[in-house]
Amino acid sequence: MLVGELGEEALLERMRRVFAPAAAEVLIGIGDDAAVTLPLPGKELWTTDFLLEGVHFKRTWLTPAELGRKCLAVNLSDLAAMGAAPFYAMVSMACPAETSVDYIDDICQGVADLAGREKVTIIGGDTARSPGPLIIGIAVCGAIADGQAVLRSGARPGDRIMISGYLGSAAAGLWFFERGLSIDEFPELRRAFVYPEARLAAGALARRLGAASMTDVSDGLAGDLRHICNQSGTGARIDLRRLPVHQELKLAAHKFGLDVEELALQGGEDYELLITAPPEKCGAIIDEISRSAAIPVTEIGEILTQAEGILTVRSDGAECVMKRRGFDHFAASG
Amino acid sequence: MLVGELGEEALLERMRRVFAPAAAEVLIGIGDDAAVTLPLPGKELWTTDFLLEGVHFKRTWLTPAELGRKCLAVNLSDLAAMGAAPFYAMVSMACPAETSVDYIDDICQGVADLAGREKVTIIGGDTARSPGPLIIGIAVCGAIADGQAVLRSGARPGDRIMISGYLGSAAAGLWFFERGLSIDEFPELRRAFVYPEARLAAGALARRLGAASMTDVSDGLAGDLRHICNQSGTGARIDLRRLPVHQELKLAAHKFGLDVEELALQGGEDYELLITAPPEKCGAIIDEISRSAAIPVTEIGEILTQAEGILTVRSDGAECVMKRRGFDHFAASG
Repeated sequence: MLVGELGEEALLERMRRVFAPAAAEVLIGIGDDAAVTLPLPGKELWTTDFLLEGVHFKRTWLTPAELGRKCLAVNLSDLAAMGAAPFYAMVSMACPAETSVDYIDDICQGVADLAGREKVTIIGGDTARSPGPLIIGIAVCGAIADGQAVLRSGARPGDRIMISGYLGSAAAGLWFFERGLSIDEFPELRRAFVYPEARLAAGALARRLGAASMTDVSDGLAGDLRHICNQSGTGARIDLRRLPVHQELKLAAHKFGLDVEELALQGGEDYELLITAPPEKCGAIIDEISRSAAIPVTEIGEILTQAEGILTVRSDGAECVMKRRGFDHFAASG
Repeated sequence: MLVGELGEEALLERMRRVFAPAAAEVLIGIGDDAAVTLPLPGKELWTTDFLLEGVHFKRTWLTPAELGRKCLAVNLSDLAAMGAAPFYAMVSMACPAETSVDYIDDICQGVADLAGREKVTIIGGDTARSPGPLIIGIAVCGAIADGQAVLRSGARPGDRIMISGYLGSAAAGLWFFERGLSIDEFPELRRAFVYPEARLAAGALARRLGAASMTDVSDGLAGDLRHICNQSGTGARIDLRRLPVHQELKLAAHKFGLDVEELALQGGEDYELLITAPPEKCGAIIDEISRSAAIPVTEIGEILTQAEGILTVRSDGAECVMKRRGFDHFAASG
């Protein structure tokens, strides 16, 4: 059956069933004019992100469940980057009338599965017909019990710069998708783009262990590092030789002539955590996240003064001013 | 200048300037991974609505400032329908790269003007290029200090049914827009569609004065009354002869052969409040909202038992079962 045949009311009812049950803090969930909740303990955190067909994804690239899951994951990643825990989400969807109801059910199930795993309650949303692209928008609210959000503005000269996981994998996955090439040989590059993990446990650990500043790498390392430097009033030096790159990216780069350094520095959507901390805190952050959250953390540089600028150390050891371009959805062709 | 030339970063910076300053409860506003706020007093309310070009509006129908303002207004209307006050909003926008920056500035200014008037702080959002339609999505959070949200499920047999303002005006305005006819002769029909008011003061008054159930008329009276009946487990009787209709709608109907009753009963987007209350509370609700909020409130029927069904009283005094169709964005052609 198609969404256009089902109608908005029946579609909402289906979504309601997939998204139940609600947590105890939710007094009124989906179905009234607004949801009603108890205020969360500590401070509340808010973020919203949407995914647009033809800009962020094409339907052939991933299953509807992966699509729904990814939209929630990229929102949760923003909370992870503050060291916070998620509580509530609202899910909005606009789809062409000729979309199958099964497809929408699967999107919702993908959202619901990750929501269940991370104890997020879906408390509302909106639906409408789209005249063209499929659009999923999610808004989330989280909390930090002790009010210690890790901001982008906390970096200080002398801080070491660390990154969780691997860089450039999602951008390499996208490279395959955009060209319609088979990605079967590189499951990790596919996973990185299609199935990003919100580093909630790692973000909470980094916060507890004294991270000075933190953000998630959504626009690419270069762009997101620049956010930290701009908001902290600092410079930075990144050693390109240390950027953590997955073995599959090296293989794919070798086979297809990709620029590994460019993908790792400028590629978006890895949703890894970019963390800065004073040198004496770094050992514990690296060890604990690797051990408890089972994610490698790599030291890749240090925070400088603003006057020193934002620099990269190239493979030949030379220092250069970092190139400006991060991922820009308006500039991007994909 | 076009959005595609400006880039996402610079666009966000412009939005940040328009949306400043933040309220004291906002510890971290736009610009970090997530906003950080103090929890609100009492209970929190959450809702989200988006407007899509080609589905909810065309750019020729209204100014960009009116568009931005309307998107916030329809969200605030959901809070009004609970009797709540708004606090925070997140504003997301997807626009084609060839949109002018001035146009986006004006949308944001329209949002900011209403936000300022209603003391709403914009704490975040998201932007992206759209492959086609302009899309504005807003999520809002409000609060009720004493935790007394007025739900759709509170109606009881014997309650009187009341409506604020006039019905059918927005649908009539849309009728002109969709046909490309001049609406200059009917400024109130234009206003109803383009510049809906969120009945925040009226909603809060209705709550304090003992409203049993409440919703806003976004899908049309018939559809929204059905929501109340379904969720309250009741029936209802609406006297079509009493539906409040603006003089301009009568004039337009006369001139263009419109069906006033159909527009008043089934037309969407009036964003008036549909209120039920025990008979002894109705006088005060009608008087106070008319006096303090300067909005007429009209008694249009009563809540019945579920077994009695949902009925309309026609102009000849005959009772009929109410037709099913409310406004459905998936079924709608516009």
